[in-house]
Amino acid sequence: MPEDFERMWADLAPVGRSSSSGGYFRQPFLTAERELVSWFLEQASARGLAVESDCFGNVVAWWDVVDQVAGEGAGGVVPDEVAPFRVGSGPFRQGLPRRDAVLTGSHVDSVLDGGAFDGPLGVVSALAAIDLLRARGFVPARPLGVSVFVEEEGSRFGLACLGSRLAVGSTPWSVARELTDRDGVRLGDVVEGGESSLLEGVTTFVELHVEQGRDLVERGAAVGVASQIWPHGRYRFDVTGEANHAGTTRMEDRLDPMLTFAMTALAANKQARLAGSAVARATFGRVDVAPNGTNAVPSRVTAWLDARCASDAALADLVAAIARQATDRAERDGTAVTVTSESVSGAVVFDAGLAARVAAEHAGGDWPIIATQAGHDAGILSAAGIPTAMLFVRNPTGVSHSPAESASIADCLVGVSALADTLERLAGATG
Amino acid sequence: MPEDFERMWADLAPVGRSSSSGGYFRQPFLTAERELVSWFLEQASARGLAVESDCFGNVVAWWDVVDQVAGEGAGGVVPDEVAPFRVGSGPFRQGLPRRDAVLTGSHVDSVLDGGAFDGPLGVVSALAAIDLLRARGFVPARPLGVSVFVEEEGSRFGLACLGSRLAVGSTPWSVARELTDRDGVRLGDVVEGGESSLLEGVTTFVELHVEQGRDLVERGAAVGVASQIWPHGRYRFDVTGEANHAGTTRMEDRLDPMLTFAMTALAANKQARLAGSAVARATFGRVDVAPNGTNAVPSRVTAWLDARCASDAALADLVAAIARQATDRAERDGTAVTVTSESVSGAVVFDAGLAARVAAEHAGGDWPIIATQAGHDAGILSAAGIPTAMLFVRNPTGVSHSPAESASIADCLVGVSALADTLERLAGATG
Repeated sequence: MPEDFERMWADLAPVGRSSSSGGYFRQPFLTAERELVSWFLEQASARGLAVESDCFGNVVAWWDVVDQVAGEGAGGVVPDEVAPFRVGSGPFRQGLPRRDAVLTGSHVDSVLDGGAFDGPLGVVSALAAIDLLRARGFVPARPLGVSVFVEEEGSRFGLACLGSRLAVGSTPWSVARELTDRDGVRLGDVVEGGESSLLEGVTTFVELHVEQGRDLVERGAAVGVASQIWPHGRYRFDVTGEANHAGTTRMEDRLDPMLTFAMTALAANKQARLAGSAVARATFGRVDVAPNGTNAVPSRVTAWLDARCASDAALADLVAAIARQATDRAERDGTAVTVTSESVSGAVVFDAGLAARVAAEHAGGDWPIIATQAGHDAGILSAAGIPTAMLFVRNPTGVSHSPAESASIADCLVGVSALADTLERLAGATG
Repeated sequence: MPEDFERMWADLAPVGRSSSSGGYFRQPFLTAERELVSWFLEQASARGLAVESDCFGNVVAWWDVVDQVAGEGAGGVVPDEVAPFRVGSGPFRQGLPRRDAVLTGSHVDSVLDGGAFDGPLGVVSALAAIDLLRARGFVPARPLGVSVFVEEEGSRFGLACLGSRLAVGSTPWSVARELTDRDGVRLGDVVEGGESSLLEGVTTFVELHVEQGRDLVERGAAVGVASQIWPHGRYRFDVTGEANHAGTTRMEDRLDPMLTFAMTALAANKQARLAGSAVARATFGRVDVAPNGTNAVPSRVTAWLDARCASDAALADLVAAIARQATDRAERDGTAVTVTSESVSGAVVFDAGLAARVAAEHAGGDWPIIATQAGHDAGILSAAGIPTAMLFVRNPTGVSHSPAESASIADCLVGVSALADTLERLAGATG
């Protein structure tokens, strides 16, 4: 069904795309991302899948098992008979209880000015895999769902994998509802919130994702399987100084937080390089300056450190080293710096048996099993105790979170086929 | 008339003030600044002053000389009879031709999160000085105007002293109309533009301003007179790299413009310190990052250098040294940097004879004559050939462009009295 994939991919191509950069702006609960969710609901409906959502805006479209639906007694209703579907508001559970379900999917939100593949590829591939399985005449013995988790990138409310964290309960709603976007809008004013039972009965999760590095390029493989996700975190550095006139204030009279930030950004890069690329990354990609006027020494610079390491201990050491250098420099600048961990995710080691099973015995031989430095909803579900696997599709540029992110249609179709094979193994009668 | 000054000052205190920082947000042609302009028009009207504006939104309220009005033949009209007043749109000249006029005033816009005094103090003091002169029974022999120039800070359209530059014609409208604010709004879509004749006949300008450094504090003087303005400029540094995933991109595979910017900000500080505070300032106070996401290596960092030196040659050397270090670092980072001079103002040496006359023979002795590193509309008018003087009022904190900017009411009243004395000398029958 290559044409199904290509048609769906063409549907999504223009949504939220910047004509100047060619990148995507698909922030959660805003126009472009909502359009993708609506598109997903239409696709689910066209395939006769039963759609459920939770109070956070996460959505699953179910290919149900006839026996389960018929056998659930009075509670067993067919999807068309439930209340009208609304995303992100109650009632959040509309369908029937499921047992031993297999879930696959990803997200449709993007970073600011992101690529086309990060997220949507997993959702489109999941729908295409269902088409392929149906064309093969496959009938699932376990319920098979396609999920779209909200705010995976944390580009609006600042917490990556927000939807999946809320769905599994690893981030409490009482904390999440107070998160605000750059305009001061509270998450609690955007979605109803509460508790999610969307993942009840899910015992396996598979996420297909574009690779975000060069591992598969270097190995010459179209598809790979994840072994683990590096521990990673976001740390907010608030540097406060004193606003002053950029002309009249003598250099030695300044308390300039920009200097403290500048040295900290260089220190982060240096520390990660010293640790070595095999084990560490550190990035300052987001900065907010007040008052941010050309002729004023800033009063405050807030900057966010994204740090990732091969081990939890190495991550803690890296962040501590950067924070120490920031504090030292702040002392020289007469500024003050505070470091706040906004989110820290420990190492995620995926189910090794599941990974081996997903990777083994394909037409082109076994697929390589590789680590990733990127966080994913799969990491959240795995950490919550749901056996989880990830499939990666080769990215020729190795670039991600950028308009330059890419994957060939041929590789994407290998990905669809790989996902279909995986789902067939997991959800089939012999699963 | 201390109560007049204090009442006017109290009128302005709440307008555009941030309740969180206590600073002011009075950007040109936006609500708070427009409210101040309306307030000024009311004050002018209450004093029977004839208001004129130009096509850029600059305003002057005239205390006219009866002989000139009566003597101008058919063209001599009294202000009440002219067309309804509109700020920033034609017809831009409504009153009568004037000869040998004395102008005083300042601006009412602020930097982002600025202080209360920078700008409004000069306008309020001018009105209070007129009240004082009238109380003294003074009758001007030369027309006496109070001016409010728009966008002195350049906080919205990026070019400082924009209104006065347009009024004297040193910045052509064809250039200015293409300036855009942070939301992409063109100046040409905000004001009508064209040519200004608002300053026709003006042969002297006096601007009173809060001091923005500690010179008067150290000299123990409430008021001082300006000798010169340092040459200064704004330079935009555009650093382009490659957006990428902050987790999966190896440190050595990055083209990270944040690093180039960080080193440049430190280099600017170092170069200015090496030159010495007596002769140089360099500041990066404004930064714009794209896409500005925590988990993305930026594709671009744009930052604005504010540089000022005691001489034109020193300024050119300073900026060249900073640009060279930026370029060197960009080569190491694999990024590209371009430096654009957005505005450069050469040294302004005020009329020495006028300054001496303004400074001499006051109750408390002569006032000190001091240099300033800050640009002012006075510098633009002086450079355009209008003999100009500046009065500074002591600022106990020495801080400006910040909520911490300050001046005591007692010193402000000394300023009003000083300004009234100056105007009396300049516009009086013996002027």
